[in-house]
Amino acid sequence: MKKIRVAIVGAAGYAGEELLRILSRHPSVEIKVITSRQNAGKDIAEIFPRLAGLGLKFSNPDVNEILASCDAAILALPHGLAAEYAAPLMKGGIPVFDISADFRLRSLEKYKQYYKVDHPAPELLKDAVYGLPERYRDDIRKTNLVACPGCYVTSILLPTTVLLHAGLVSTEGIIASSLSGVSGAGRKVDLPYIFPECNESVRAYAPTGHRHLPEIEQELAVAAGVDSLNINFVPHLIPVNRGINSTIYLNPTEKFTPEAADEAFHAAYDNEKFVRYLGIGKLPDTKHVTLTNVCEIGCVYDKHTNKVILFSCIDNLTKGASGQAVQCMNIRFGLPETEGLL
Amino acid sequence: MKKIRVAIVGAAGYAGEELLRILSRHPSVEIKVITSRQNAGKDIAEIFPRLAGLGLKFSNPDVNEILASCDAAILALPHGLAAEYAAPLMKGGIPVFDISADFRLRSLEKYKQYYKVDHPAPELLKDAVYGLPERYRDDIRKTNLVACPGCYVTSILLPTTVLLHAGLVSTEGIIASSLSGVSGAGRKVDLPYIFPECNESVRAYAPTGHRHLPEIEQELAVAAGVDSLNINFVPHLIPVNRGINSTIYLNPTEKFTPEAADEAFHAAYDNEKFVRYLGIGKLPDTKHVTLTNVCEIGCVYDKHTNKVILFSCIDNLTKGASGQAVQCMNIRFGLPETEGLL
Amino acid sequence: MKKIRVAIVGAAGYAGEELLRILSRHPSVEIKVITSRQNAGKDIAEIFPRLAGLGLKFSNPDVNEILASCDAAILALPHGLAAEYAAPLMKGGIPVFDISADFRLRSLEKYKQYYKVDHPAPELLKDAVYGLPERYRDDIRKTNLVACPGCYVTSILLPTTVLLHAGLVSTEGIIASSLSGVSGAGRKVDLPYIFPECNESVRAYAPTGHRHLPEIEQELAVAAGVDSLNINFVPHLIPVNRGINSTIYLNPTEKFTPEAADEAFHAAYDNEKFVRYLGIGKLPDTKHVTLTNVCEIGCVYDKHTNKVILFSCIDNLTKGASGQAVQCMNIRFGLPETEGLL
Amino acid sequence: MKKIRVAIVGAAGYAGEELLRILSRHPSVEIKVITSRQNAGKDIAEIFPRLAGLGLKFSNPDVNEILASCDAAILALPHGLAAEYAAPLMKGGIPVFDISADFRLRSLEKYKQYYKVDHPAPELLKDAVYGLPERYRDDIRKTNLVACPGCYVTSILLPTTVLLHAGLVSTEGIIASSLSGVSGAGRKVDLPYIFPECNESVRAYAPTGHRHLPEIEQELAVAAGVDSLNINFVPHLIPVNRGINSTIYLNPTEKFTPEAADEAFHAAYDNEKFVRYLGIGKLPDTKHVTLTNVCEIGCVYDKHTNKVILFSCIDNLTKGASGQAVQCMNIRFGLPETEGLL
Repeated sequence: MKKIRVAIVGAAGYAGEELLRILSRHPSVEIKVITSRQNAGKDIAEIFPRLAGLGLKFSNPDVNEILASCDAAILALPHGLAAEYAAPLMKGGIPVFDISADFRLRSLEKYKQYYKVDHPAPELLKDAVYGLPERYRDDIRKTNLVACPGCYVTSILLPTTVLLHAGLVSTEGIIASSLSGVSGAGRKVDLPYIFPECNESVRAYAPTGHRHLPEIEQELAVAAGVDSLNINFVPHLIPVNRGINSTIYLNPTEKFTPEAADEAFHAAYDNEKFVRYLGIGKLPDTKHVTLTNVCEIGCVYDKHTNKVILFSCIDNLTKGASGQAVQCMNIRFGLPETEGLL
Repeated sequence: MKKIRVAIVGAAGYAGEELLRILSRHPSVEIKVITSRQNAGKDIAEIFPRLAGLGLKFSNPDVNEILASCDAAILALPHGLAAEYAAPLMKGGIPVFDISADFRLRSLEKYKQYYKVDHPAPELLKDAVYGLPERYRDDIRKTNLVACPGCYVTSILLPTTVLLHAGLVSTEGIIASSLSGVSGAGRKVDLPYIFPECNESVRAYAPTGHRHLPEIEQELAVAAGVDSLNINFVPHLIPVNRGINSTIYLNPTEKFTPEAADEAFHAAYDNEKFVRYLGIGKLPDTKHVTLTNVCEIGCVYDKHTNKVILFSCIDNLTKGASGQAVQCMNIRFGLPETEGLL
Repeated sequence: MKKIRVAIVGAAGYAGEELLRILSRHPSVEIKVITSRQNAGKDIAEIFPRLAGLGLKFSNPDVNEILASCDAAILALPHGLAAEYAAPLMKGGIPVFDISADFRLRSLEKYKQYYKVDHPAPELLKDAVYGLPERYRDDIRKTNLVACPGCYVTSILLPTTVLLHAGLVSTEGIIASSLSGVSGAGRKVDLPYIFPECNESVRAYAPTGHRHLPEIEQELAVAAGVDSLNINFVPHLIPVNRGINSTIYLNPTEKFTPEAADEAFHAAYDNEKFVRYLGIGKLPDTKHVTLTNVCEIGCVYDKHTNKVILFSCIDNLTKGASGQAVQCMNIRFGLPETEGLL
Repeated sequence: MKKIRVAIVGAAGYAGEELLRILSRHPSVEIKVITSRQNAGKDIAEIFPRLAGLGLKFSNPDVNEILASCDAAILALPHGLAAEYAAPLMKGGIPVFDISADFRLRSLEKYKQYYKVDHPAPELLKDAVYGLPERYRDDIRKTNLVACPGCYVTSILLPTTVLLHAGLVSTEGIIASSLSGVSGAGRKVDLPYIFPECNESVRAYAPTGHRHLPEIEQELAVAAGVDSLNINFVPHLIPVNRGINSTIYLNPTEKFTPEAADEAFHAAYDNEKFVRYLGIGKLPDTKHVTLTNVCEIGCVYDKHTNKVILFSCIDNLTKGASGQAVQCMNIRFGLPETEGLL
């Protein structure tokens, strides 16, 4: 069987490295092109010594070259830039899996409000499918533009949409508190991210207006069947390399019982390969999911305050970015969804 | 001037070590007795090499010896055991500063509910003053039994009581999410606390019914002037040695404005030496407070959801335990409150 | 093709977990039995949640059961205990891959000197092959008892034997300084290994007489073609989960030139899949090898002092233990050596 | 008594922060000027929130202003730049304590060889005293230019000079292996120092020709009473914030016995306040010295190889930089040597 030839556009960051790690073991994929403007011409061994065995070289991103040699492209680029490459690649007829934020938001206004620029390719939005397979699997199968969710977003949507969709929790008063490892900031060289500033440090940041907020709200609203909803989302930076731990506080509706919640989770996830629902009263740990594409979920009902509390852990670079992109690619190409991801 | 001769009862744990670190530099204190049943007879250099210069030896705790040679005792013992020592020491006439949970709760029922045993010395409770100087300074001055607050509790009370007391936030729907370093679990030899289980791990635990919960609720109720209130408190374990970072979500009352909150914080803390209120929109970081007795506080109003979010950081072993005990001791003995703590 | 049915005896420690991680993805292996006396009857999800999907259960180790159902056994047991299981399993006719120290030393005297007990099964030593494939590949193919090397040992032998064997460095004055992550101590619940004692700590230990010393000396002597040699080996504990970084100081012989060393390394390792020789002047990093079966090697000649300095990094649990055992198993069963290990 | 008014020139890096931490508690010092070209005009709270209480502001370094208002200057500047400020400050008559490398080397050739520029102020070298109080205390008392030793250097000199000076070890074949926390690289914003690149990483660097090498060799030669000697010095980067752990391998002379070494260490350090000699067979740990000005030393004799192995730990920012500068300042100003440092 012919392998899918893949281009990784923007392969020198942490999401790119994770794509390389995953795809290099993917039995149905050949990594054909890896691009990095900053590192064009360099051997992969110079940037990622652990991947030296792949024998790849970074090139300048060249749409024609990618179209000529590849069957799919995964974009691990900053927002704005991703859209520039997505358009010609789609026009050229190959599916694009975009890890950036460019095609996640349905609303051009929200995009402008949160990213401070006009949307770079609004005409493509109609094709974009939100790349959360557990909710949009069928649509992913049929599109050439998959907008992979943000890392925080994935960790919040997977547990929360289930109970919202089942009508077991209210759309009012949702609070999501997330803790992320430092690789979530990207391979970014900036004072707050050097080791002595992060190690032995725990800090909240962007407690209002974080760029992942509108994306979370958009998808929670879809799940709840409402036009819109507002939530609190407070991220914290934690001294680990990888992993996101999210705790979500919810108000139960009258329909809510722990048994009903348990049932809803089992119904939603018993057949999902990348969600491990632990049960009522059980709590996840980032170390159980790092370097896997799994989201681990726990659920607690606190009768003392009549609150439902959901807990989830993912690897921000795998299920939160590159692993999920590969999962979407598997779906789009009709491969077993877990291929290369176990 | 004569120095205060102090006994540290239970000096071989992390709170004990922190007391030793602080008191060894305290100009008005002489560390007279350090006890540890497990390490009786051992030189301090064997347990805490960095404190070798103190030339102290651990002894078995002996109430008569302490009464004969000391002016004050600080108890860094497990709950239950602390009460056993507090009673005879107080009877002997010296002030006791208890870092355990034994005298923090006013309610015997709550004590039994959360600690699973009958209170070991209910007759002493009437003397106990809650050792949070920023709220009980005058009472601390006059008692011989100071019940020093729990670490999580301190980090939540210092920011939250201000707004509750000012009537700016509701007693309903309070959610406190806390992140703690591993020393908060004590010098405990247990599988979940070995390095490879904690490093590269972030996990919530005890999301309902944590032992610090009734203490938080008790003191928040006092500040709000209500009989009782219920909150959510969810602690998380984070791979740092020291530090607690708490994020508290609150519902504003009609009186609330960011300016009023700002004013309330300034009024409460501008003259406090161990609270650093950062202002509206500013966020604390544990690394700014580790190894200090300071609580750093920030406040955010999120109009998007009409929530008030408070942020605080302390060092769990200093302001969260031993530093606060010394602060109380300074107050009780009429010393400058910051002595030995800057 | 029929899969090799494998028993992992002692599967609840870190080496066991790593075997499970590797073998669960090994296309030619079926994990048939996993044993743990302490956890017998428990589902794997209770001990290693990230491996929950395997659906395995720990059993008490039972030689007859293993012989009845398995084609091979990997022992991840403490020394002494390993020998007890190796004997009947070999007698039963299945190959045994032992990660313990029981069959690594050729000398019964050294075993007793370093392990403080008489060797538990001296009669088996004649069958034992030292499980370092890069040096004993052909022998591994033919034995039923593979004694997998220690973690520190692997990191020192792979670089050093090359130059000793080529006669480029002297057998005199060899100094090996190694830095190990905490998982190297096993899943051991002991005060020195709890998080606050390891984090922000760097310490040497056992600078003379470490149990890996005789094993290193034995194999270096073999490579050099001498009866015996004495070296310094000083291990240090470093606050990382995984990884060993070794720096080895050597005296060049008259034959030595950097070019000759470079050539020797290329000759030894250009065809080896699990050694990445970086070249003269290049230095490895543990983060390039964690979770891989690769040993990364660099070589420096310091003319200022006329010393050769070798640098190597491995993952202590993979190439230093479980990965190497699987590599040996692949060889023994005629599988591609890299199967399940890339 | 009048306080010593001190200027900290280059106060916005980690050495500067450590000077601020120490001097803010120093009873005989007033911090009068803190400079930072990059942060001139900013309040200290913006750069170092934990030091907000000092109420200081960064200014542009201005020699005249410093001379007009200060009694001493501590330079925490890059090499090259330090010399520019040292000259006019000394001419202006105030003692200068330089933490940079500018005045450590006696040889202008070595300076040029290792720092790649001509020495910026060779005329000052005659006044420079090497700021290692344990060896140059009397000279420090009398000079206006103290060249504080490098961090690695301090950790190697304190143990090694004792045995060299006593003639117990040879000047031949000395090997020093050091492990440093990341703050040793300074508050430097560069890819190799961001958290995900350092965490879970252990790596050697600069195994030949490190800039601290000539300084170590110079001072070891002085201690041994020889003109010159050559050593191996291999530093490694370790994921801790603070701390250096050095292991030094030495060849004993015929005079060597463990008892003689023990005696030499006791003679050298029993009266030193900032050296904690642990004894023969005892090993130090960085966590015993972080945030102190202490160097912890252990000594092992390995009869198996006839080697002497020394072990030392310091805090790279305290005894390795800022604490040592303050110790020198205390000496120069006739204060108790430990003032502000306990």
